[in-house]
Amino acid sequence: MAGIESVRADLYRIPLSTALTDSTHGSMVDFELIAVRVRDEDGVEGLGYTYTVHTGGTAIRAMISDYLSPVLRGRDADLVERRWQDMWWALHYAGRGGHVTSAISAVDIALWDLKAIRASVPLWRLFGGYDPQVPVYAGGIDLELPLPELLAQSDRFQDDGFRAIKMKVGRPDLREDVARVAAMREHLGADFPLMADANMKWTGQQAVRAARVLEPHDLVWLEEPTVPEDLEGHARVVRETGCAVASGENLHTLDEFRRTIEAGAVTHPEPDVSNCGGFTVFRRICALAEAHQLPVTSHGVHDLTVHALAAAPNRTYMEAHGFGLEDYQAQPLRPRDGVVQAPERPGHGVDLDFDRLEALRT
Amino acid sequence: MAGIESVRADLYRIPLSTALTDSTHGSMVDFELIAVRVRDEDGVEGLGYTYTVHTGGTAIRAMISDYLSPVLRGRDADLVERRWQDMWWALHYAGRGGHVTSAISAVDIALWDLKAIRASVPLWRLFGGYDPQVPVYAGGIDLELPLPELLAQSDRFQDDGFRAIKMKVGRPDLREDVARVAAMREHLGADFPLMADANMKWTGQQAVRAARVLEPHDLVWLEEPTVPEDLEGHARVVRETGCAVASGENLHTLDEFRRTIEAGAVTHPEPDVSNCGGFTVFRRICALAEAHQLPVTSHGVHDLTVHALAAAPNRTYMEAHGFGLEDYQAQPLRPRDGVVQAPERPGHGVDLDFDRLEALRT
Repeated sequence: MAGIESVRADLYRIPLSTALTDSTHGSMVDFELIAVRVRDEDGVEGLGYTYTVHTGGTAIRAMISDYLSPVLRGRDADLVERRWQDMWWALHYAGRGGHVTSAISAVDIALWDLKAIRASVPLWRLFGGYDPQVPVYAGGIDLELPLPELLAQSDRFQDDGFRAIKMKVGRPDLREDVARVAAMREHLGADFPLMADANMKWTGQQAVRAARVLEPHDLVWLEEPTVPEDLEGHARVVRETGCAVASGENLHTLDEFRRTIEAGAVTHPEPDVSNCGGFTVFRRICALAEAHQLPVTSHGVHDLTVHALAAAPNRTYMEAHGFGLEDYQAQPLRPRDGVVQAPERPGHGVDLDFDRLEALRT
Repeated sequence: MAGIESVRADLYRIPLSTALTDSTHGSMVDFELIAVRVRDEDGVEGLGYTYTVHTGGTAIRAMISDYLSPVLRGRDADLVERRWQDMWWALHYAGRGGHVTSAISAVDIALWDLKAIRASVPLWRLFGGYDPQVPVYAGGIDLELPLPELLAQSDRFQDDGFRAIKMKVGRPDLREDVARVAAMREHLGADFPLMADANMKWTGQQAVRAARVLEPHDLVWLEEPTVPEDLEGHARVVRETGCAVASGENLHTLDEFRRTIEAGAVTHPEPDVSNCGGFTVFRRICALAEAHQLPVTSHGVHDLTVHALAAAPNRTYMEAHGFGLEDYQAQPLRPRDGVVQAPERPGHGVDLDFDRLEALRT
């Protein structure tokens, strides 16, 4: 056994090159990155990370440094399932989801990275291996972008190799959403895969109404039409309209995904490996979706997620998230003709440039 | 309007006079207290607090200091509902429950305290007022206490004015639980209200079995028979046995209570005002329980809770929790003949001795 020698958590505030906008979070100019490095007694190091939409990062760092690190140090790094349980129960009281799942996710990702590095295999192969060519879409965060810029952005996405695009909806007047979606459909052509994301903007009834008027524009899915607590609102969109429904970035436990799936509230479960509990839980969600005959998509941190989806037979498009880390990575994923290739490097193969990040440390 | 001038959060590690034990948290020798003082522009101050079972406190403090305080400062202190929404959405991403609800709870309690102090009324009257005499039970945290000490503890509880007692169950061998409950029933007499708390020890099937063999000992309720995710396990105990079921200390949103109640998984909803979202949410849970013809009990921080239950017509026994703050309060609640009296002092009337606490600051 190689015991865990240290667990290091660092918080960085990463500026975005342009302000991003959606119906819930307003204008986003930066995000918090919490990076975790787990080192074993042989000096081998695994890397994990999670992020937030601007707030919560110091709390996540505190959870890792003050409470998870003590229950991890000295324990066997290779028994990831065991370590996951240790972490879950260490912060269970007042926890059971929320930010603690982001803290656990970051450590879990680092432990899986460490395990795969020690085995000299890429994570997607360690996870079973299905197909390293993962279809990807560009997740636009663009609610406030004027229409000409929205269309120009979609051209840039295509120049960058994307062949599927998601746009934001949820503007004050639904007719604006419809006009923007119609313009995007016209611009992209009838066969181009287009998704739309409402970021919880609507009530259930509003969501049904929106889905009905958006139906003619043939969306691959409509995302988070209501708050995630409103399972019935989600389920009504699925049952009463022709729109598929994606949801998951705000679900933080396997149990929340089970409930959402069993309620018929989602057709495209969309976990974020950095806030659903790490690879350990993300892969269970893939299995749960498969048992329900559902495809699985993803949210956030695509450089990590690609490994889970490259091992999942029911994967559909992976999100390439707007909170990219391309500027701080040696070899970021590059889409080509609508797919990305899961790397063959050991572990997840993400090499963060900590020297470059140092200036952004909080 | 009186704007919020400052929000101060302090963390203390409070030693327990004797180690407390249950089936999940093992031996507890101290707890974390996170105290929040909200001061308005007129210099009036409201006090709130939350606590943890040993872990998570630095994260809760960080949430309050780094993220809640900035969205509160300068805003109208009197619009508590509005401030609650500000806080919920400020930490919604990666949140939606878990520790963030404890952070919000502490601030919410301070805002209600401030509002009532400014109005020169006690909180329970501000909340409507029902009956200041609130029945109370002693929440023993005593799974590992040898039987003679368990019985002696129940004598001390009675000497202290309690007329209802809860004990822990969930020992490795169910027969030990049964023997201890039987001995307590024998010792206390047939009419004495006795509850038992399994702290999530069992599977659903084990819980049904345990409830059946405990039935002859006439428990007021059996608490947290399974993990809170296992609504069907809880519901089976309710449907298939004669035991009532309390649950709530690990539910952190109104939505979780709604789901648990609608699943028929609980007969005695048991919110903790310090982790369910503060008085704002606790009182909604009381209303929700009433709409379902259910009594409402409570967990933790009884000196605060008494105000919510003194205003709730459907209240049943309030828990006097083992994590007491008596040594740090000028006028702690004192049960007399099984009831406590909600104070007539303005606000919640809890006066923490911060000079005394100073030595325990973390």
